[in-house]
Amino acid sequence: MTNASGTSAAVIGATGYAGATAVQLLLRHPQVALTRVTSRSNAGQKMGAIYPGIESDLELHAEPDPGDAEVVVVALPHGIAASLVPGWLREGRTVLDLGADFRLKDPAEYARWYGADHPSPELLEEAVFGLPEVIDRGALESARLVACPGCYSTAAILALVPAVRGGLAKPDYVVDAASGVSGAGRSLGLHFHYAEAAENFNAYSVEGHRHLAEMTQACRTGPGDAAPRITFVPHLVPMVRGILATCYFDLEGGSTIEQLRDAYRSAYAGCPFIKVVDAAPGTKQVAGTNECHIHVTQQGDRVVVLAAIDNLVKGAAGQAVQALNIARGWPETAGLELPVRWP
Amino acid sequence: MTNASGTSAAVIGATGYAGATAVQLLLRHPQVALTRVTSRSNAGQKMGAIYPGIESDLELHAEPDPGDAEVVVVALPHGIAASLVPGWLREGRTVLDLGADFRLKDPAEYARWYGADHPSPELLEEAVFGLPEVIDRGALESARLVACPGCYSTAAILALVPAVRGGLAKPDYVVDAASGVSGAGRSLGLHFHYAEAAENFNAYSVEGHRHLAEMTQACRTGPGDAAPRITFVPHLVPMVRGILATCYFDLEGGSTIEQLRDAYRSAYAGCPFIKVVDAAPGTKQVAGTNECHIHVTQQGDRVVVLAAIDNLVKGAAGQAVQALNIARGWPETAGLELPVRWP
Amino acid sequence: MTNASGTSAAVIGATGYAGATAVQLLLRHPQVALTRVTSRSNAGQKMGAIYPGIESDLELHAEPDPGDAEVVVVALPHGIAASLVPGWLREGRTVLDLGADFRLKDPAEYARWYGADHPSPELLEEAVFGLPEVIDRGALESARLVACPGCYSTAAILALVPAVRGGLAKPDYVVDAASGVSGAGRSLGLHFHYAEAAENFNAYSVEGHRHLAEMTQACRTGPGDAAPRITFVPHLVPMVRGILATCYFDLEGGSTIEQLRDAYRSAYAGCPFIKVVDAAPGTKQVAGTNECHIHVTQQGDRVVVLAAIDNLVKGAAGQAVQALNIARGWPETAGLELPVRWP
Amino acid sequence: MTNASGTSAAVIGATGYAGATAVQLLLRHPQVALTRVTSRSNAGQKMGAIYPGIESDLELHAEPDPGDAEVVVVALPHGIAASLVPGWLREGRTVLDLGADFRLKDPAEYARWYGADHPSPELLEEAVFGLPEVIDRGALESARLVACPGCYSTAAILALVPAVRGGLAKPDYVVDAASGVSGAGRSLGLHFHYAEAAENFNAYSVEGHRHLAEMTQACRTGPGDAAPRITFVPHLVPMVRGILATCYFDLEGGSTIEQLRDAYRSAYAGCPFIKVVDAAPGTKQVAGTNECHIHVTQQGDRVVVLAAIDNLVKGAAGQAVQALNIARGWPETAGLELPVRWP
Repeated sequence: MTNASGTSAAVIGATGYAGATAVQLLLRHPQVALTRVTSRSNAGQKMGAIYPGIESDLELHAEPDPGDAEVVVVALPHGIAASLVPGWLREGRTVLDLGADFRLKDPAEYARWYGADHPSPELLEEAVFGLPEVIDRGALESARLVACPGCYSTAAILALVPAVRGGLAKPDYVVDAASGVSGAGRSLGLHFHYAEAAENFNAYSVEGHRHLAEMTQACRTGPGDAAPRITFVPHLVPMVRGILATCYFDLEGGSTIEQLRDAYRSAYAGCPFIKVVDAAPGTKQVAGTNECHIHVTQQGDRVVVLAAIDNLVKGAAGQAVQALNIARGWPETAGLELPVRWP
Repeated sequence: MTNASGTSAAVIGATGYAGATAVQLLLRHPQVALTRVTSRSNAGQKMGAIYPGIESDLELHAEPDPGDAEVVVVALPHGIAASLVPGWLREGRTVLDLGADFRLKDPAEYARWYGADHPSPELLEEAVFGLPEVIDRGALESARLVACPGCYSTAAILALVPAVRGGLAKPDYVVDAASGVSGAGRSLGLHFHYAEAAENFNAYSVEGHRHLAEMTQACRTGPGDAAPRITFVPHLVPMVRGILATCYFDLEGGSTIEQLRDAYRSAYAGCPFIKVVDAAPGTKQVAGTNECHIHVTQQGDRVVVLAAIDNLVKGAAGQAVQALNIARGWPETAGLELPVRWP
Repeated sequence: MTNASGTSAAVIGATGYAGATAVQLLLRHPQVALTRVTSRSNAGQKMGAIYPGIESDLELHAEPDPGDAEVVVVALPHGIAASLVPGWLREGRTVLDLGADFRLKDPAEYARWYGADHPSPELLEEAVFGLPEVIDRGALESARLVACPGCYSTAAILALVPAVRGGLAKPDYVVDAASGVSGAGRSLGLHFHYAEAAENFNAYSVEGHRHLAEMTQACRTGPGDAAPRITFVPHLVPMVRGILATCYFDLEGGSTIEQLRDAYRSAYAGCPFIKVVDAAPGTKQVAGTNECHIHVTQQGDRVVVLAAIDNLVKGAAGQAVQALNIARGWPETAGLELPVRWP
Repeated sequence: MTNASGTSAAVIGATGYAGATAVQLLLRHPQVALTRVTSRSNAGQKMGAIYPGIESDLELHAEPDPGDAEVVVVALPHGIAASLVPGWLREGRTVLDLGADFRLKDPAEYARWYGADHPSPELLEEAVFGLPEVIDRGALESARLVACPGCYSTAAILALVPAVRGGLAKPDYVVDAASGVSGAGRSLGLHFHYAEAAENFNAYSVEGHRHLAEMTQACRTGPGDAAPRITFVPHLVPMVRGILATCYFDLEGGSTIEQLRDAYRSAYAGCPFIKVVDAAPGTKQVAGTNECHIHVTQQGDRVVVLAAIDNLVKGAAGQAVQALNIARGWPETAGLELPVRWP
C-alpha cells in the first residue's frame, strides 16, 4: 500500500541497531510503505517484540529477501550484501547499503581491508557514495545502488572535505574520533559488556581501521591526485550513541582561518542537516537526529575541526533515508525531523 | 611457600568476576599463598593477561583441580561444585564455595529452585552458611565446607536478621533490591550489553529469584518454626558494582523503632565490616570493600531497613575470605582492609 | 498565529527540564502556537541557545508573564505558581501546572508537606488532577486549572488505581520507586554531580516524600473513605531519565490475579498511552515517550505491579499536553507521537 | 606520632577530589602521620563524614594552616598556594603542591595562562617539577618545594618525553586527550551535572588549555632549545575517573619504530609505576592506581603513543606521594600499592 508518489521498502537485517533505526525511520516516512523486514536471528518474531516503540505488524522473515519492495535497505555484515545486491539490481530495485561492501571504488583496497576478493567488483564504479553533502547530488537521482559511508567516515569526511576541496589544508590530517558503544552493533562482545565498558575509555584499531580507506578515498582532491595522509584512531566511549571526530591539520600557505570558516559555511549552506556552530559540539546535542554539528577553530596555527553526529542516524540509517529522499525528489528532511529511540 | 601459621589456596573458576576478586584478595592476604588458579575458558593464560592489576605468575589450569592447595575457593556455576566438593573434602581440604550448591539445607528446596536433584545431599547438613555476622562463629572454626551466601541474600539477611531474632518484626517482609551489572557475571548477554543496559532500570525474576530461598531459610526464627513470608524483587541498575536492599516490614506489637535500632547496634557490635549508619547509604560508599552499611528507619509506622554492599566483595569473595579468617583464627579483616579493582 | 481550532500557549519556567520538554512538545503540536517562554535565569536568550534541538525564535522573558497566550503551562518551584495562577485565571486563561501547588485538595496536607500555608486555597477544590487515565475526563473539558501530578505519583497511581477501585487489594501498599537523575531537575547539587551520582544507587526521603500525599489522595476509594496505607521510598539511579515503580500489595480476600489483570486491562482499555505488558518493563522502553508500561504479576501470594514511565514526559510535560488535548477535544496523542530530546 | 624515620603531614584543601585522595594515601602510608587537614567549606567536620572510607578522627580546620606538620600537601585553586607557600618554606617545611602555581618556570608564561602576575616568582626556579620519571631524581631529594604536574600534563609528558629526549621525533605533536568528570573537581557546574554529562562526549578549551604550557616546557630538549609545537585538545568523557592521551607525531628522519619502542622501554626501565604495554590501554586498567600504561605503535608512518592514568592518583595525589617517597628515601611505592576509593 504505497502512496501515489511514494514507494515500498524492505529492510534486510532489520534487528541490528542500524537496521532497526532504518525500520523506525521508514515507518514514520510519509512517502514510504515498509513492506518487508528480515532477520536471520529473530525470524518469525515481530519487530515490536524486539524493539520497544516499533509499532508494526510486520513479521521478520528469515531469508534476506525483499519481497515486492522497490527499495531495499541493507544492514548486513560486510561480504554478504555484495553477493545479494546484483540480483536485486537485476530485478529493478533500488538498493541502499548501510554496510561496507560498495563504499570503496578500488577492488584492491577492498581486498586489503576486508581480507577477501570483492564478490561483485563490476558494481563498484556504479555505486554512489551516499554522503549527500559532499557528492554530486544529481548522481543520487539516477542511482540504483547507494553505498552509505561508515559512521566514523561520515563525521570525518564532513569535517575535512570543505578544507580539502578549497585547497586550504595541507594534505596531512589527524582524525581522532570517539564513538558510543552502539557503534559496535548489537552483537555481544566482552568489550561491550556493561561491566567492562562502563568507566573505561580506550583506543582501538590503532594500526588502521577500515573506515580510514573511505576517508582517504573521499579526501582525494581529484581522480588522478595523490591521496592525502590521514591518520585515524577511533576510541570507545562509555555512552550509548554519538560520534565526535576531532580533526587536526595545517592551513595551506597563505590561507587563513577566516577563509576556512567561510569555506565550511558555503559548502554546507544548502544542507539542512549540517550546522556550522560557534562552540565545540557535544555528541548529546545531535543524539537521535540526522544532524552533523561542525566547529572550525584553531589552536595556535593548527586548525582543529570538530564534527558530532549520531552514529546510527546520520552515521547510518538516517543518512540512507536522506539519500533516498534526494533520489526520489522528496523533501530532503522527510521522515527525519524528529529523534529516534533505542538503544 | 606458605607462612608458618598460614595456608595455601586455590581458586577454581578464577576468571569470572567473583573468582577474580577472590584471586585479588588472596594474593594480598598475609597468611595465604595462592598456589593454583583454574579456568576452563582461559586455560594456559596468566591471570594478569585477563585482569589488569593482578600480578601473579600463576597460569590458569583448564581442569578444576586445586593441586596441593589446602584451601579451595570455588566460583563455579551451580551444579558443578556439588560434584567436585566431596572429593576435595575426602582429601582433607577446606572448601569455601561462592556458588549456590551448598547453601540450602533442604534438598527439596534445592531441587525446586535449581531444577535438579542435589548431587551430594549428604553434605548439606554439614555445610556452614558463610555469613559470619549471623551464624555461630564457632561453627566456622571447625568447618570443612563453607557455603557463602548469594549477593542479594547477604544484603537482605544482614538487613533482616536482627529484627527477626529479636522478635521485633511481623514475619512478612518485602525486600526490594537492586544490583549493578557485574552481579550477572562476566558471561555475555543482551541484557548486559552496554547499549542495552545503560539508561535502563528494570526488575527481573519478579515471580521468584533463587536467592529468596536462602533469605527465607536464614530468617526462620528456630528449627521448627514457620518460615516468614518474604517477597523479594531484584532490579538491574546501570552501574558496575553494588547492591542496595530496601526492606519493608511492620514492628511486632508493642516494640518501638528505638528498640529495633538497639537490636541492630547490639547484633553488629563486634562486627568490623558492618556499620549501622545514620543516613540512607549509597552503594558507592561501600564499592570495592567488604563493608555492609545498614540504616534503620521508619516511614509512618512501617519500618524501612536499607543495606548496601559490594556484590563481589561482601556479596561473594570478600565474605569467603572473612569466613576463612575466622575459621583459621586470623584477624577477621586480614587481607580485606583496602578496596579491590575491576570491573 | 493560531490554527483555526487551535490555541496559543506560554511556558512559564521554560528552561528547567520539565519546562523545556513542554516547549519541545508544544512547538511540534499541530494545534498549538507557542507564543511566549519565560525564564528568570536565562532571560534574553533564545531557547535553542540553551537546549539543542529546540528551533524557535522565541526569546526568554524574565518575568513569569504569559503575554497573550490562552494556555499557560507552568513549570515553577512550588509556592510560586500558587501566587500567580489566580491572576491568570481571572484573565480567562487555562492553566496547566506541572508543579505541586494545586495537587492536594486539603490545604492542611499542603501545609504539612510544603511547610507553609497555601497561598490560594480557594482554588484547590476547582483544580482538576491532571492524570487523564484515572479521573473523570469530562472534568478536564471544562477545566480552567489542571494540576499535573508528580512524576513518581504518576507511575504509582497508574500502578495502583485499578486494584484500588476494583476493591481487589488490601489497602496497604509498598511503592518502591527509582528515578533517573533528571528527576531532580537542572539545578545543581552534589548528589547530582556526575562524579558522585555515577556508580551509585541510593534511597532518599525515606521517612516521607512529598509525592506520597498525592498517591494517598488518589488511592482513596471514595470521598469519605479511610486513606489506604502507602509506604513510598524513592531511589536515585545513575541514568538520565525514567522512573520504575515496583508496587507490592495483597489481594483482597477471594479475588484472584486473573481478576486483577482483567481489572487493569479494562481500566486502561481506551488509553492510548498505557500498555499492560506481559513482561517486566524497563525504563528504557518508554524513554522519551508519553507511555506507561504496566506489568501485573505475583510472587507467591503477593501481588507485584510494575509501572515504567519517562519522568519528564508522562511524568510531567507530556501528561500536561495530553490533558490539554483532552480538554480541547483534540486527538489525545496530538504532538505526543514521537520521542523528545535532551537531557 | 611519627615513625622514627617517618614524618608528619598536612593536607591543605582536603575535601576536593585531589586533596581527599591525598588524605586517603597518607593515612595508609607506613612512614607518614597525617596530623592536619583543612577545608574552608567543610570546616569543623570530620573527613569521614564527607568521604566514605576515610577513617580518621581529624577534624577539618577552616584556615589553610598546616599546624606542626613537616610536610604540606597543597590542593588549592591556583593563585592561593603561591601566597602561602613562601611562609611554609621559611618555617622549614617541605611543600608538595598539587596545583598549578609553581609548575611553570617562566613568570611570563604564568601570567599569560593564569591572567595575573605570579605572587612569588622568586620560587619558580627552585621548585622541582614533580614528575619523577622524567626529572633528575636527585633534585627531589633536596627539594623544599615540589610542583606536581597537571593530570593531562602527566599523561602527555610521559607519552612524549622518551621520544623527545631520544631525538627520535619531529618536534610537532598532537595530544588528543580525554578525561573522566572527576578531573573537573568536586565543584558544581552544569557541564558536570549528571543529566548533562551522561551520554555526552565533547572537546573543550580547544583554543588552548593551561596544561599545554606545562607540556611544552617539559618537551624542550634543552635549556636554550626551541619549544616544540604541541597541539593539545582535552575532551570530557562520561565516566568518573581516568585520562587517556592519544599522541601523534612523526619519526625523525632515519629512526625506526623499534628504536622508539626501545627508547620507551629503557627510559622507564627502573620505574615501578610505568608499564610499556603491548596493546592499547583502557583507562579502567589503571583506575584507582598510580600506574601509567603506555603503548607505542604506528599507523602507516605516523607514530601513535597512548598513555592511560588515573587523573586523581598518578595525575595528582599519588604522584605527590611518589615524589615524597623519593625525596625521603623511602620505597618509591610506599603507600601506593593498592587502589583508592571515591569518587
